[in-house]
Amino acid sequence: MAADAAHGKIEVGILGATGTVGQRFVRLLEDHPWFSLRWVAASDRSAGKRYAEAATWQLEGAPPASAADLRLDDCTPGRAPRLVFSSMSSDVAGEIERAFAAAGHVVVSNSSSYRMTPDVPLLVPEINPGHLGLLAAQRRERGWEGALVCNPNCAAVVLVMALAPLARFGLRRVVATTFQAVSGAGYPGVPSLDALGNVIPFIRGEEEKLEPETQKILGSLDGDRVRPFPVTVSAHCNRVPSLDGHLVTASIELEERPPLEAVRAALCSFRGLPQERRLPSAPARPIHLLDAPDRPQPRRDAGLENGMATAVGRVRECPVLGYKFVALSHNVLRGAAGAAVLNAELMMSEGLLD
Amino acid sequence: MAADAAHGKIEVGILGATGTVGQRFVRLLEDHPWFSLRWVAASDRSAGKRYAEAATWQLEGAPPASAADLRLDDCTPGRAPRLVFSSMSSDVAGEIERAFAAAGHVVVSNSSSYRMTPDVPLLVPEINPGHLGLLAAQRRERGWEGALVCNPNCAAVVLVMALAPLARFGLRRVVATTFQAVSGAGYPGVPSLDALGNVIPFIRGEEEKLEPETQKILGSLDGDRVRPFPVTVSAHCNRVPSLDGHLVTASIELEERPPLEAVRAALCSFRGLPQERRLPSAPARPIHLLDAPDRPQPRRDAGLENGMATAVGRVRECPVLGYKFVALSHNVLRGAAGAAVLNAELMMSEGLLD
Amino acid sequence: MAADAAHGKIEVGILGATGTVGQRFVRLLEDHPWFSLRWVAASDRSAGKRYAEAATWQLEGAPPASAADLRLDDCTPGRAPRLVFSSMSSDVAGEIERAFAAAGHVVVSNSSSYRMTPDVPLLVPEINPGHLGLLAAQRRERGWEGALVCNPNCAAVVLVMALAPLARFGLRRVVATTFQAVSGAGYPGVPSLDALGNVIPFIRGEEEKLEPETQKILGSLDGDRVRPFPVTVSAHCNRVPSLDGHLVTASIELEERPPLEAVRAALCSFRGLPQERRLPSAPARPIHLLDAPDRPQPRRDAGLENGMATAVGRVRECPVLGYKFVALSHNVLRGAAGAAVLNAELMMSEGLLD
Amino acid sequence: MAADAAHGKIEVGILGATGTVGQRFVRLLEDHPWFSLRWVAASDRSAGKRYAEAATWQLEGAPPASAADLRLDDCTPGRAPRLVFSSMSSDVAGEIERAFAAAGHVVVSNSSSYRMTPDVPLLVPEINPGHLGLLAAQRRERGWEGALVCNPNCAAVVLVMALAPLARFGLRRVVATTFQAVSGAGYPGVPSLDALGNVIPFIRGEEEKLEPETQKILGSLDGDRVRPFPVTVSAHCNRVPSLDGHLVTASIELEERPPLEAVRAALCSFRGLPQERRLPSAPARPIHLLDAPDRPQPRRDAGLENGMATAVGRVRECPVLGYKFVALSHNVLRGAAGAAVLNAELMMSEGLLD
Repeated sequence: MAADAAHGKIEVGILGATGTVGQRFVRLLEDHPWFSLRWVAASDRSAGKRYAEAATWQLEGAPPASAADLRLDDCTPGRAPRLVFSSMSSDVAGEIERAFAAAGHVVVSNSSSYRMTPDVPLLVPEINPGHLGLLAAQRRERGWEGALVCNPNCAAVVLVMALAPLARFGLRRVVATTFQAVSGAGYPGVPSLDALGNVIPFIRGEEEKLEPETQKILGSLDGDRVRPFPVTVSAHCNRVPSLDGHLVTASIELEERPPLEAVRAALCSFRGLPQERRLPSAPARPIHLLDAPDRPQPRRDAGLENGMATAVGRVRECPVLGYKFVALSHNVLRGAAGAAVLNAELMMSEGLLD
Repeated sequence: MAADAAHGKIEVGILGATGTVGQRFVRLLEDHPWFSLRWVAASDRSAGKRYAEAATWQLEGAPPASAADLRLDDCTPGRAPRLVFSSMSSDVAGEIERAFAAAGHVVVSNSSSYRMTPDVPLLVPEINPGHLGLLAAQRRERGWEGALVCNPNCAAVVLVMALAPLARFGLRRVVATTFQAVSGAGYPGVPSLDALGNVIPFIRGEEEKLEPETQKILGSLDGDRVRPFPVTVSAHCNRVPSLDGHLVTASIELEERPPLEAVRAALCSFRGLPQERRLPSAPARPIHLLDAPDRPQPRRDAGLENGMATAVGRVRECPVLGYKFVALSHNVLRGAAGAAVLNAELMMSEGLLD
Repeated sequence: MAADAAHGKIEVGILGATGTVGQRFVRLLEDHPWFSLRWVAASDRSAGKRYAEAATWQLEGAPPASAADLRLDDCTPGRAPRLVFSSMSSDVAGEIERAFAAAGHVVVSNSSSYRMTPDVPLLVPEINPGHLGLLAAQRRERGWEGALVCNPNCAAVVLVMALAPLARFGLRRVVATTFQAVSGAGYPGVPSLDALGNVIPFIRGEEEKLEPETQKILGSLDGDRVRPFPVTVSAHCNRVPSLDGHLVTASIELEERPPLEAVRAALCSFRGLPQERRLPSAPARPIHLLDAPDRPQPRRDAGLENGMATAVGRVRECPVLGYKFVALSHNVLRGAAGAAVLNAELMMSEGLLD
Repeated sequence: MAADAAHGKIEVGILGATGTVGQRFVRLLEDHPWFSLRWVAASDRSAGKRYAEAATWQLEGAPPASAADLRLDDCTPGRAPRLVFSSMSSDVAGEIERAFAAAGHVVVSNSSSYRMTPDVPLLVPEINPGHLGLLAAQRRERGWEGALVCNPNCAAVVLVMALAPLARFGLRRVVATTFQAVSGAGYPGVPSLDALGNVIPFIRGEEEKLEPETQKILGSLDGDRVRPFPVTVSAHCNRVPSLDGHLVTASIELEERPPLEAVRAALCSFRGLPQERRLPSAPARPIHLLDAPDRPQPRRDAGLENGMATAVGRVRECPVLGYKFVALSHNVLRGAAGAAVLNAELMMSEGLLD
């Protein structure tokens, strides 16, 4: 993979660089120790423009100098570096990501198109790094020189981060209600006439994602496929007028009925490969168990550990299913751009980008 | 009971008239066909002031002329009319309401102090009008000439309105998550530094109220006591930055496993005594089943039928408990001031105010 | 003009019936004593659909039964009644409104296209009913059988309602800063990612409208033209996260330097032809002078007199220009749909719809 | 002044350490290169508690370890270090700050009590560092061994930062309208029932501060007094539902009538002593002139340069006063805690803490 001459960094590109998640990719890659942003692409009507002109910059100040002067390419594989992050909308992502992978690119995608595809890893580096084992079959069966890896839906990740340490207690059933921030819908996304002072108790296609994604992420690699984890998830997905951070309340059933203290300890002590290898974007502690009775709160806690930690609070008994708690992750960082960057870091540390 | 000379109306008073709920009482009584507001009381430091001066008016325009010039009394029974609505904060309500009932007043209370007291009806006129039968025991055992009746907590009422028509299907277990509006905490209540763009996943004392209140409201009168309805409720209570209207997502278990259409039909066709008797504050239909996939929404639907109807939507299957749905009621009207006025109307129609 | 057989009402139509303002027209016409809604039109892709299906209903509950079953027509003059309200977006309004007026329709428009056209009245019935005199020249010069009348921009109307009673004191200069609600941008309009917890100090094209519209509305009819009122207006236009109600702070210069009490009295006592003739949508008092030091507030006061009154508060001295105050009007009612309906009522009372 | 043994840092304390501004002081002092937090005080009822217990922590995560275990002292001079930051509410600050200064402490205050006191510097280090010359008279006349220095009101600082570079053009008159964030009122501060979806066009005592503070800050030292700068300011102060960042729209009169480009250049090139001396909290550029037509925006731009830069945009002609623009500063950082820390750094660099 072409290395950055000056700094020994790997060159990377972004598909869908001007959107809400694309802008976060730009920020995260600004001073990344391993990756150097060299290429950006967006829809055809932006092609040829300077990034700073084409993107309506939504984050603080102005686009980083390193990205501001890049010219937007169109979404074809020709001039892109080998490693490409993708945050395209799902209506176009399917075809384009496949074309890039077929042309030899490693596509680390935040789109939903291939998350449930059997030979595509739905990767959360703390939970299922072994799912990268699917890539051998992916290349063999598809004849690709490149590869395609996905991160989960931005609400699914909140739940699965909190459930992963508890799976060993015999996790069986989950009733989860989400409070999802407006940034989860991108830009322009949710009209303010819908969001202000309101709750919208419906997000198209969202509830249908939470159950299978949870089962796949927690599942075990079985030859060329992932055997789903046998948990039943019922989701109630809702949009609330918060900006960043998806909060989830969950009631769960654990077959082994451990004491509350064991549940808390399992959450607190949870660590994974990213922590062991000290990957650049890995949080020191994937889960922060908060003590205050009224935390976590999206506005105050979504940013913990640069938005890569999941905050959990109010772990207590549930008279119906056994246990209940509140969990929160930053939907654009741990739930999108940060997740993809961490996935690429894991692949790098596994030698998959050589 | 002293009747309004000019209009043949019954004179009423308000304990706690200057707060958020108190102001709603004032509005609801402004043109009430049966009741005429003649007396207002608040904390001692307001006593003697004109209502318009003492109350920081939070509703549109200015206080109604009928209330503006009333002088605030202190919270002692002497000069009050027989029928008194109470919206005092629960730290002082207990003693004062008891004193009024003992002195012969009929106290229709929105406070939480006596809701779970065995001989006090926790009244929802569409659901359990027969619980007024407790009043005989209440008078006999306490030696009161007056009476004390309560309405439920503003979040409990949302849930119980939607559950009541389904109880007959063998309602067994409920996991409910609330999205509660800031008006539920009164004034000044929730600081904007907490509420803006945030979710607060905790409301002190709230979750503990939902289970027993639901059991009592749905329970059956058994001599001098209410036998609780055998349903287990697990509540997750949360504050969101909406203004009025508590929304609840619920997953429920129905032993009889009726088809979804039967559940919808039971909700739609639900009627009670207030509808039959056409009580002035009764909604024509207690439950509005909304078809749009993204309704009910607090800002758009809390005001249905002057805030006295409960909106239900998204009735669908739950893979964990069997059924799930979204429900919404106006917390200050159906959940507080309107509930108490409807309670008084029911008592009037039962001859209990004679 | 074809009258409603059953009720003797005049039949009316709406161009642009599905948008934010269009939905308000539908509500206002639901039980209007003079007008009966019979025809709705929107963009071509909605043509043929039932109104209830084509419109994403944003107001409480569901569309009124009278409108729900109307089929959307396309925006051509053929089947429309003579009186047509228009709330089309300004990029298409120009051509379509002209076509309707040329075809004999009376177009009462909320669009910006013709507001500054010399032979089109920019009508505020309380202020300049005489500007209807322009219609004679309009018909003569354009050869139209119909007519075209406009109401002002939704921010301009707030300012001009408060300035009109003060014009006689020698109004010379105005510095006005607006706090405009998101509904002013229609639907989907302002993305919630822009609006939440934020202020956007820019609304495209808005500041340029306030000065000339103010001058024209306050101007005097001079033969076939309006002589602009000689006032200089400097506007700072801003979007804030309120829902309905544009608030304006204004510092003004009055040549005659009247005492503050005279300014307040002029505002309070302001009345016009709509009040005299008791037009159905006319507020009893066009201006409510509020006493509380912290009023008017958009959420609490925009709805005064069904959203047709302008609230003014904090009238006080300005060390720079002489006087300052705060004003507020409901931008979708007094500033759009309600304004147009009042314009039609004025025209009716002038015999211009015969 | 007692230096931190381990690091050679100066020990500092905070009066009013648990409030909104106090918590920001704690954060700013966490890793400060010159100062080390050793002492915290708050109201009597907190005295003796650990800081982490007494403060309802409102910022991300939890209080810094360095502060969490400090015991709250009461607000008396005995055990405090020589340098003390104060963010007490103004009703108690007056007496306590005087007591500390009299007892030999250097009090760097964010309170309003002494801002307009003739012998107290109202200090903005970029604008009027020379006003520290008042301290000689302050000590002489009052017999203090300590000293007292103030920073401006959090809305005044926005205006004065933008005006300072323009004073030389003959600044004469200003009409300013503020959009103030809720954090400006502290905690609990503004009730969410007032703030949500609303504008409150009144902040008690605020408008009265803007004119004299602006005149004093821009004034020139004349012996033992500051001669006010001859500018007339008319302020309209408003609360809006933003979280952090006070935005101001201003129309101004400049006697010399420079071209717009000269105004922009004066803003852009503005630098002061803190930049020259590279004080730790000084922004590299005190004023950022933003090009985008819709910036600055509070939520996106208040954090520029750690909240210490002022953002200015939309510099354009005003038909009434000549020039107009939009300005924004972070009210809790540049407008409160950060301002005080920068003041202390300036005093340190002047040798006033020796």
